[in-house]
Amino acid sequence: MLRKNRLFTPGPTPLLPPAQAAMASFSLHHRTADFRTLYMRALADLKQFVGTKNDVLVLASSGTGAMEASVSNLTSPGDKVLVLTAGKFGERWRDLAQAYGCAIELVTVPYGETFRLDEIRKRLTSDVRCVYLQATESSTGARHDVQGIVKLVRANGDNTLLVVDAITGLGTTHFDIDGWGIDLIIGGSQKALMIPPGLAYLAVSERAWQRMESTQSPRYYFDLRKERKAAARGESAFTPATSLIGALSASLDYIRQLGEGDLVTGRGVLIAGAELCAEMTRAAVQALGLKLFSPSCPAAALTAISAPPGIDSGAIVKEFRESFAAVVANGQGEMKGKLFRIAHLGYYDYVDTIGIVAALEHVLAKIGGRPIQYGTGLRAAQEVYACQANRETVPAVV
Amino acid sequence: MLRKNRLFTPGPTPLLPPAQAAMASFSLHHRTADFRTLYMRALADLKQFVGTKNDVLVLASSGTGAMEASVSNLTSPGDKVLVLTAGKFGERWRDLAQAYGCAIELVTVPYGETFRLDEIRKRLTSDVRCVYLQATESSTGARHDVQGIVKLVRANGDNTLLVVDAITGLGTTHFDIDGWGIDLIIGGSQKALMIPPGLAYLAVSERAWQRMESTQSPRYYFDLRKERKAAARGESAFTPATSLIGALSASLDYIRQLGEGDLVTGRGVLIAGAELCAEMTRAAVQALGLKLFSPSCPAAALTAISAPPGIDSGAIVKEFRESFAAVVANGQGEMKGKLFRIAHLGYYDYVDTIGIVAALEHVLAKIGGRPIQYGTGLRAAQEVYACQANRETVPAVV
Repeated sequence: MLRKNRLFTPGPTPLLPPAQAAMASFSLHHRTADFRTLYMRALADLKQFVGTKNDVLVLASSGTGAMEASVSNLTSPGDKVLVLTAGKFGERWRDLAQAYGCAIELVTVPYGETFRLDEIRKRLTSDVRCVYLQATESSTGARHDVQGIVKLVRANGDNTLLVVDAITGLGTTHFDIDGWGIDLIIGGSQKALMIPPGLAYLAVSERAWQRMESTQSPRYYFDLRKERKAAARGESAFTPATSLIGALSASLDYIRQLGEGDLVTGRGVLIAGAELCAEMTRAAVQALGLKLFSPSCPAAALTAISAPPGIDSGAIVKEFRESFAAVVANGQGEMKGKLFRIAHLGYYDYVDTIGIVAALEHVLAKIGGRPIQYGTGLRAAQEVYACQANRETVPAVV
Repeated sequence: MLRKNRLFTPGPTPLLPPAQAAMASFSLHHRTADFRTLYMRALADLKQFVGTKNDVLVLASSGTGAMEASVSNLTSPGDKVLVLTAGKFGERWRDLAQAYGCAIELVTVPYGETFRLDEIRKRLTSDVRCVYLQATESSTGARHDVQGIVKLVRANGDNTLLVVDAITGLGTTHFDIDGWGIDLIIGGSQKALMIPPGLAYLAVSERAWQRMESTQSPRYYFDLRKERKAAARGESAFTPATSLIGALSASLDYIRQLGEGDLVTGRGVLIAGAELCAEMTRAAVQALGLKLFSPSCPAAALTAISAPPGIDSGAIVKEFRESFAAVVANGQGEMKGKLFRIAHLGYYDYVDTIGIVAALEHVLAKIGGRPIQYGTGLRAAQEVYACQANRETVPAVV
């Protein structure tokens, strides 16, 4: 039987076919009126997708570039910052703040867990200049309480900015960026947007723009003020990754179609889809006797699953690849070998989700160390689906 | 008649069809053995293309990202650097060095000219930590004497590093990187490599790696030491722009085919092609009574042509676009309106060059302000071609 190569990784995610076509055939030069029109429209659409009235900018870099921009533009050496870490990407905030000479306060919880608001409140002194966190920690599959945290930060006054890495959060979870008061939120192209890696995007509040007038850290390629000025005329400060801009534009058109002509509705469809795929996967995994890695706060973007006792998750990843050409993600850093991760963000549907759950049953049967009743996970996933499909008309009975 | 959209801009350049296909269908996850194999091979091929035994690294950014890396990794605040400026990209070196707090010595010549070696020699004191220049200044079409300059820098001792922005130089001109002793040389994907913007690449000498052990400027996303470590295992430090890596790989395969199985030979074919297109264009332009903007040191990557007296080059650019859907580049910065630029680097051949020369005759006939004898430029271009084609067997008679 054929084995089609399939990504179930939380980025890159499967590519949207019209975006692939747009990318391959993109031939506009970036300093032309046609490109400016396209880019302006893409930025306006992206603003709707992100869900903000703040300026939205695009950078030619991976998401980490936008994370760096959030440190180099918003802090000066010696500034006190509060970094919330609960996994590998939280640690990236810490390393970035360190690289730029910030005075770092850490709130750290174990991998797979999330933060206690009272602990954050205690550490939020008036001299904290920035708070850095993830919306969803891709290394553990945990979702953090952004709304709760932003409330604390806003109560701390305008001297404290909140920066949210939502690289796997945007398009998988709801944020009221302007209503809550998030100062900078970051996304990446290779996630819910269903296009390849190579673009980062970010939305910047007025408070954050004001901060940039006085900060002293060196920056050039990631100088957001320069980028804002260029964006106002439909350009980027430096050569943009044009083929990916073409793909981005096609992706946003697709999301608008999902919403029957309305991009915000389309984003809702995307988020609901990821939520449902995630819920199906969680139900299946638990029915199969496996443990969720972040049971108290699971994200919709991906599900992290603990390897069964005595089994290296690398063997599970390998078996998925060898038998089904399906790429699931191993744990990262200290979690390598301990968990595996299945993505739901972006271009996934029911059939994909059912397929990977069924494949998981075969993988467990082969190397899981104990017998599997085929269909156990599938049935649990189907019940979630059926229940959801009937939710508005029929009382849920799972 | 159809009008096919065609780029004659010095980046992005026309896309190589197999690279477009590779890019659209690329589906490998970057943390898999298959990707590592492909990436390792692409880096090894790129090393041959660049022509060095030094480490070659790829960044997910435009070329400016690699320029920033050459400042942030190789200098500490207060370091004395010599910046050679002869156009917009020279000024970018100056601005970058300024952003990172270097003590800047400038050697500046007017746009369209190149540097006098004795002037550089005079300014090269023993405390200069880095010299920054362009191989070819894309804003003016000037080619600088990299070999002559590197000789001066090397004579200045190992305390002085030479950094060359060869973003439009690589694949259009010959460099003996290791033999001459260039410490860091930079390329970009959207130039001779015939793929979209979004990747920068650079080759780093042992002297430059040693320098990085002691420099103090902040860097994270562009930290080359981190990137080197990742590259050694076939990875990039942060999520790579995977679709562009697929395109890069296809492009390098094509260049190898150009050389009948040898990449270095293929690069020679690419360089000779750009040289010939450039020579044809220069001959045509001069036969038509136009003036080259950088007559004393014209690059093979592009030809910058002064607008006829009283004509705004923007009108010429517009007429190319409107009548032929051909995108040529206006002047940049203070040269806007004064010159236009036609590219030769990458995927251009005889037919492209003849086509754009013929189109230029129509453009001049329409808005050039004086009568044109059709075929004047074409014939001059053809004579260059015929002469070149016969060069090895028949004495040249132009």
